[in-house]
Amino acid sequence: MLDSPVTLYEQLAGRLQAAIEHGSLRAGDRLPSVRDLARREQVSLATAVSSYRHLENLGLVEARPKSGYYVQPRAPRMAEPEMWPMSVRARMVNVNTSVMSILAAMRQPGIVPLGAACPGPALYPTAKLRRLLAAQGRGNLEAIGRYGMGMGHPALRAQLVRRYAHVDVLLDPEEIVVTIGAMEALNLALQAVARPGDTVAIESPTYFGILQIIENLGLKALEIPTSPRDGLSLDALDLATQKPGAVRALVVMPTVQNPLGAIMPDEHRERLVAMMRERGIAIIEDDIYGELAHGGPRPRPLKSWDREGNVLLCGSFTKVLAPGFRIGYLAAGKWQEKVEHLKFVHTVSTPEVLQSAIAAFMESGGYDHHLRHLREAFHGQLRKTTEAVEQHFPAGTRLTRPAGGFLLWVEPPARLSGLELFRRALVENIYIVPGSIFSGSDRFDHCLRINCGYPWSAAIEQALTTLGRICHDMLAEAEAAG
Amino acid sequence: MLDSPVTLYEQLAGRLQAAIEHGSLRAGDRLPSVRDLARREQVSLATAVSSYRHLENLGLVEARPKSGYYVQPRAPRMAEPEMWPMSVRARMVNVNTSVMSILAAMRQPGIVPLGAACPGPALYPTAKLRRLLAAQGRGNLEAIGRYGMGMGHPALRAQLVRRYAHVDVLLDPEEIVVTIGAMEALNLALQAVARPGDTVAIESPTYFGILQIIENLGLKALEIPTSPRDGLSLDALDLATQKPGAVRALVVMPTVQNPLGAIMPDEHRERLVAMMRERGIAIIEDDIYGELAHGGPRPRPLKSWDREGNVLLCGSFTKVLAPGFRIGYLAAGKWQEKVEHLKFVHTVSTPEVLQSAIAAFMESGGYDHHLRHLREAFHGQLRKTTEAVEQHFPAGTRLTRPAGGFLLWVEPPARLSGLELFRRALVENIYIVPGSIFSGSDRFDHCLRINCGYPWSAAIEQALTTLGRICHDMLAEAEAAG
Repeated sequence: MLDSPVTLYEQLAGRLQAAIEHGSLRAGDRLPSVRDLARREQVSLATAVSSYRHLENLGLVEARPKSGYYVQPRAPRMAEPEMWPMSVRARMVNVNTSVMSILAAMRQPGIVPLGAACPGPALYPTAKLRRLLAAQGRGNLEAIGRYGMGMGHPALRAQLVRRYAHVDVLLDPEEIVVTIGAMEALNLALQAVARPGDTVAIESPTYFGILQIIENLGLKALEIPTSPRDGLSLDALDLATQKPGAVRALVVMPTVQNPLGAIMPDEHRERLVAMMRERGIAIIEDDIYGELAHGGPRPRPLKSWDREGNVLLCGSFTKVLAPGFRIGYLAAGKWQEKVEHLKFVHTVSTPEVLQSAIAAFMESGGYDHHLRHLREAFHGQLRKTTEAVEQHFPAGTRLTRPAGGFLLWVEPPARLSGLELFRRALVENIYIVPGSIFSGSDRFDHCLRINCGYPWSAAIEQALTTLGRICHDMLAEAEAAG
Repeated sequence: MLDSPVTLYEQLAGRLQAAIEHGSLRAGDRLPSVRDLARREQVSLATAVSSYRHLENLGLVEARPKSGYYVQPRAPRMAEPEMWPMSVRARMVNVNTSVMSILAAMRQPGIVPLGAACPGPALYPTAKLRRLLAAQGRGNLEAIGRYGMGMGHPALRAQLVRRYAHVDVLLDPEEIVVTIGAMEALNLALQAVARPGDTVAIESPTYFGILQIIENLGLKALEIPTSPRDGLSLDALDLATQKPGAVRALVVMPTVQNPLGAIMPDEHRERLVAMMRERGIAIIEDDIYGELAHGGPRPRPLKSWDREGNVLLCGSFTKVLAPGFRIGYLAAGKWQEKVEHLKFVHTVSTPEVLQSAIAAFMESGGYDHHLRHLREAFHGQLRKTTEAVEQHFPAGTRLTRPAGGFLLWVEPPARLSGLELFRRALVENIYIVPGSIFSGSDRFDHCLRINCGYPWSAAIEQALTTLGRICHDMLAEAEAAG
């Protein structure tokens, strides 16, 4: 039997949630009765109940005894950040040193972990994974003693093929190269399609690791404005790639963009794949958060529109299942052979015993169940953090409404220094990531990214209060200085 | 209590073995009685007996009842290959494509594995490692759920520090970066010290992976003649590095060089470290076979003579303990910080659960015991293979007498094509590696490397007979063609 990646009740809850988020259902509105909902949506009563319970867990609706379900009152929201205007100039990147000194902070003992995109370990099925590491048979023993030269464990490749088939990506097991996390996948993909000096288009802001790889490979970055709602601006990209040969590749996260949490609409996806194909620009699709879209069905990857092998699909189990295993993958389309060479030269192969434990987990059928819980936990944590930011940060702060994942992007009013905010937070033993490292330019220097991957706690609440206070202080100082 | 990496009986056996190998004890000679040996060497009777038994296991001596131990009669040996003359010209390398197509052959089902440097899985303590993967406590669970950003697991770093202290390499745990095998360590080391276009001196012949990395990073290779007995020619290196700034770095395997099995004498090591320091040339020391020197004590790494941080020490557990785990390491001296950046950008971090299983194995005290058995097995397998080559290959064939490891380098007479030999062997389902991929030049095109890492078997014996026959055929054809 095929797993359905999203259950019926989850799909239904997703639609209701969208109605709430977009305001067609408002705070205090009474929702249809369970019976009415079941009839209208042609689902069972149990499914209707599950949908409401799910929304209740997310804090979006409340059950009033003998009366029914109501949309939760919500404080007025802070506005979303706006997309930055275009600035078409490819440039060499120089972020490595600052990124590393910022990342080093996460090792400070007892720090509140609102920085790196690392969720709480307790959210992952670590005990089961450990059991699976040990529970497998003779094949597993051989995998420990064998210098695995293949490009990926057959069982894991088979699971990936199966999973991606649900979203219309039809892979051949042999075209999947298993990598050391998405980071190696991105490295191999960029090295396969571009040579030193080439220009690569990227989202702006984007994951700093992509900037680091670009810097390390001697490539130039062309930053394309990216909307917190719809992701990469296709109009800006269109303009920037008019000149034939000027841009070699595009790196894009269409589903739950890091750091903005945007999801690119399907019609954009189709247009994007066609435009890049016509212009001979390779697409490197970073799908690392692909399974973490809140509610609704998982969006189709760009790769599902790709017929020519022009999309290199990168993904990983790091955020969704086993952070410590460092298992990622890459389906490189027409660059497949090149990527196999590069994989050998980089790291030879990926530990098979970890691959087979993940495959066994997926075969056991518990993966979708785990993902549902994980998405729900992240959604709840994002919501709590959003409320705390709205409460404690200065008026005029903007913040994203992520469509998935566990990251919040915050833009305080006026041009504060995110780096100064980072430093002052560190003194209070709070770790955040300043906006400056998400771009080769200075346009996000006043922003910050907050990791909402840890279960809500008094320490986190306190830390957000402190962050808000620091922002207020910095604003007051800026005003005093004239 | 500190482990002694080499037991007393093993040291004694090593000295006796050296006397046999160098001819001061000859075939048929009677060895001293156990009692005489014990008195002369000031060891216990038990130690003297263990030494003789060890030599007996290696097939070097035989016990004659009521008479004592005698040196085994040995067939006349084939000569060792000679060192190739100097050719000083740095060049771009282009081996990737041929290496990959040759490596692909190892996946042919049922092939006799005399190619890649991969020993038989049965020689490794896979069951114990699997148990250790599962047996660890809460820390291990967290390691599965944690996106380990550190540069290495503290327990593994501590074990490495302890082990290298035995050979006078004094490391700080913080300076060890744990990598995905030695391959990633070599990548990071080369990227840290050299930029595209720079020249790197290497041994000739050398491990093809080093050539691939050099090609991939856009570096030039300067091949230095290397002797099957003493390793890298310091005189040739001296000549080649006279011009200041012409060579940026040297990659060298002083202990059990791949493919030649040479061990560089200590006086060469000291001179090499001093020469490279004076000329401002970084040394990348590949110590992957460091624990696999036959008999005698493990040679001191170059790093033990390094006081300025000019040696980047690379190693791995791939050949010695857990081939499938892909755990290597790098102590990068004064390039430490640069290497930490590069590690993050390459693969972020190395799976902690595998590191902690290796550390637990080393803590358990069974590591030296395992290594002794492994060395003994490899020694025996090399010996059997050597005898088979001597028996079946054409007269005039030369072959190495490796001082450790499990690789044999064979140089058939006249200029046969190693690639043609590789192809004909493949038809017979035998996998060997042609000499051509061990150099950017064509000077080893007639050679081959034989993996002796698998326990001796009828299939291997048959394969060596077949290889010898193919060589005879090719020689006859060459003569017929005039």
